[in-house]
Amino acid sequence: MAFSVDQTVALLGRTPGALRALLEGLSEGWTKTNEGPETFSPYDVVGHLIHGEKTDWMVRARIIRESGESRPFDRYDRFAQQRDSAGRSLAELLDEFARLRAANLAALRAWNLGPEDLARRGMHPALGSVTLAQLLATWAVHDLTHLHQVARTMAHQYRAEVGPWSAFLGVLRCQGHSD
Amino acid sequence: MAFSVDQTVALLGRTPGALRALLEGLSEGWTKTNEGPETFSPYDVVGHLIHGEKTDWMVRARIIRESGESRPFDRYDRFAQQRDSAGRSLAELLDEFARLRAANLAALRAWNLGPEDLARRGMHPALGSVTLAQLLATWAVHDLTHLHQVARTMAHQYRAEVGPWSAFLGVLRCQGHSD
Repeated sequence: MAFSVDQTVALLGRTPGALRALLEGLSEGWTKTNEGPETFSPYDVVGHLIHGEKTDWMVRARIIRESGESRPFDRYDRFAQQRDSAGRSLAELLDEFARLRAANLAALRAWNLGPEDLARRGMHPALGSVTLAQLLATWAVHDLTHLHQVARTMAHQYRAEVGPWSAFLGVLRCQGHSD
Repeated sequence: MAFSVDQTVALLGRTPGALRALLEGLSEGWTKTNEGPETFSPYDVVGHLIHGEKTDWMVRARIIRESGESRPFDRYDRFAQQRDSAGRSLAELLDEFARLRAANLAALRAWNLGPEDLARRGMHPALGSVTLAQLLATWAVHDLTHLHQVARTMAHQYRAEVGPWSAFLGVLRCQGHSD
């Protein structure tokens, strides 16, 4: 599918509600367990997505629009949520994610981006030159990589409980390549 | 996490709402596209989950309760939704899935299953002897394997659009092992 702002915003607008419908009110056996050291629980994922709303996607989009390739993006802290989420409930985090995402999408729509804007380039500190369209597509796929991770992490909690059916359940063969 | 009926029902109750929040009203570019021949679109997944509610999980649970290992389960048709979903909108399928799932979970709760019931055995035509607890755990993980697949399939549609970021997006490295 070719990139479009509308298709991207439509998907980005769904993620807070999808995570809320899946997670809110579930026990910590599903929401606060992970796949082992240095992996994310579903609770961690929501904190990580909040951090992205605050420091990554729209911040980088503004850098591209204002400075182009002349000012590289700041590096992203993949474990910031361990500090920022401390003591907060999953319900609070889901609320904050929904609020930040809605505000960011409203700001993005207000830019009314055209083909020339989307082709503008910025400088990623590791990946090099990237376009604004690639940044926005990545924002959407980043949501999906974490939804994929949440499903895999929850399935892992029942790995031993499915008995011989593990042979038929693809999610249990996923190698944890999402982060 | 040890198996429990409550944890299992809690998760199974979330899937219809999570899929609705993620998919309803999105364009067919996200919902009716797949990963290639013999793969499922998100629309196909919802039809497949409906077929499971009608012919698999509770039907097999009843066979275990009524006949134990003496009557093997019927085989499951993984492509039945190609026939059953024809001409129906995604919104209709999401409604039907939610309705069937709610009725099945109400019936499951009404059984008030105890440890002896959960240890009862049935006969899977390919996997051999399985317990009722394993069947119910598999029902939940089967939801997650398809949520994992939906996220991966949607990400695939933007594979070319993320440019160099594909190196950082785990979902794009998932080998399609979920079905």
